[in-house]
Amino acid sequence: MSYQKVTVAGGGTLGSQIAYMAAFSGKDAIIWGRSEGSLDRAKARVARWEEAVKDYYEASQEELDAAQAHLTYTTSLEDALSGADLVIEALPENIETKKDFYEEFDKLADPETIVVTNSSTMLASDLAEFTGRADKFLGYHFANTIWRNNTAEIMAGPETDADLAETFIDFSREIKMVPIMVNKEQHGYILNAMLVPFLGAATELWVKGVAEPQDIDKTWMIATGSPMGPFAVYDTVGLNTAYEIHNGKSDEASQYAAKKFKERIDEGLLGVETGKGFYTYPNPEYLDPEFLK
Amino acid sequence: MSYQKVTVAGGGTLGSQIAYMAAFSGKDAIIWGRSEGSLDRAKARVARWEEAVKDYYEASQEELDAAQAHLTYTTSLEDALSGADLVIEALPENIETKKDFYEEFDKLADPETIVVTNSSTMLASDLAEFTGRADKFLGYHFANTIWRNNTAEIMAGPETDADLAETFIDFSREIKMVPIMVNKEQHGYILNAMLVPFLGAATELWVKGVAEPQDIDKTWMIATGSPMGPFAVYDTVGLNTAYEIHNGKSDEASQYAAKKFKERIDEGLLGVETGKGFYTYPNPEYLDPEFLK
Repeated sequence: MSYQKVTVAGGGTLGSQIAYMAAFSGKDAIIWGRSEGSLDRAKARVARWEEAVKDYYEASQEELDAAQAHLTYTTSLEDALSGADLVIEALPENIETKKDFYEEFDKLADPETIVVTNSSTMLASDLAEFTGRADKFLGYHFANTIWRNNTAEIMAGPETDADLAETFIDFSREIKMVPIMVNKEQHGYILNAMLVPFLGAATELWVKGVAEPQDIDKTWMIATGSPMGPFAVYDTVGLNTAYEIHNGKSDEASQYAAKKFKERIDEGLLGVETGKGFYTYPNPEYLDPEFLK
Repeated sequence: MSYQKVTVAGGGTLGSQIAYMAAFSGKDAIIWGRSEGSLDRAKARVARWEEAVKDYYEASQEELDAAQAHLTYTTSLEDALSGADLVIEALPENIETKKDFYEEFDKLADPETIVVTNSSTMLASDLAEFTGRADKFLGYHFANTIWRNNTAEIMAGPETDADLAETFIDFSREIKMVPIMVNKEQHGYILNAMLVPFLGAATELWVKGVAEPQDIDKTWMIATGSPMGPFAVYDTVGLNTAYEIHNGKSDEASQYAAKKFKERIDEGLLGVETGKGFYTYPNPEYLDPEFLK
């Protein structure tokens, strides 16, 4: 058995999903948040994940009750870290926020406590110096809706202990994830390193007026057998994320794409979240078998 | 009813598939080839497509016999063009070969005959001048194994008649394709404009040593629900194609990738074709449900 007492710093979308899946898998999970308000929001999220996990795993009420019994919440970092085997940092993608956390963590945690970051945009080597334990630190990246998209990408930094990454193979399986070993530091890990250029190419076809989003999705779905195309992916992750990805780049094409996404966001077309994006939910056109004919 | 008498110039992989699907759909299809040898090879290909189409459509012997009765072969371009409603050029991706064909075609064909190119790499505007009828010419792009990957991308050039592209919507449906309208000329049409950067990103992860091909595929399959990852795609299209794509680019990363593909080709690891590529066929690891666990 690997890490048993798992503290998740941050109860946002990913943090709350990770903590819930750990608890559902019998780990003693704690969500640490800075304020009661943030913990209340985390609890509301967990209630949603519980429903999703219930459906996905056809979980019994006993199993759901056991998961809740394994999950606690605290605003005290000292309490959160006391006896923790593993700390998973899932805070907002802001280097200052993360730096502040790691420095506070390093003061309070046992020097042997392992800590990992779920950051999508930063590497272990970007953050290692703040942890006071670069050898006991690595990148550990989950995808949204982790019960279904259950990859756990494990990416050591140059200073990480040679054996540490291996310990996350068992741990990942214990919390129902598929461990994916990333052998070198890579921005975007494996998944986003492919997803970003793929989505970027699709976006370019759309904003240049080459084809309609539905036709682009249809082409991809037929050609690759995928259950969704790039614009259905955007609807799923939310157009705000699409906007941020493109707005974060300075080239003209990305800026133009950001503008096009912003126009849709301003019209309330955020995707699944608002019931309307490139498709209308809950029964988007692309799920209709006629869509591919 | 749209185009009935359809001449396909070139009986290679795509040409023979297009002609066979047209014949199977009740069109009068002719394959034109330069030599008896090339027609013999086309006939051997058609025999394979017949088996595949039989399985895919659960076609009866009567339907297969009718398809064969609708399909003829000739080395005489004059015969091939006589009375043709539509000519689909599916010759090798070599501009000289295509130029020679279009010039010969223009001399022999009725001035009203519509002609289209299935080229993946050239645009209608690259070839229009050779046809003597830029207004009656467009790009019409099929994907390999067209009975299953049945997109037909329709891409007019700047000089194409405004109404011509529309006529390919009905025609595509009549030959069991899904018409995809490409509204502006675009290298790679829609599909390859997405597939090439996606495969390129995956290749980069592999050749840089970030992750193993199997782990890259697994990550993509879990995250997107796709039935195959990028390296399974390479095995399917063949490593020779992967090599050519990368060798055709001059940047250092592409050249390095080409070298890595070449090493595998020299070892006979061409993919599905040789029974071994990144996976072993006919039962590749990635089709095993355990692969995603």
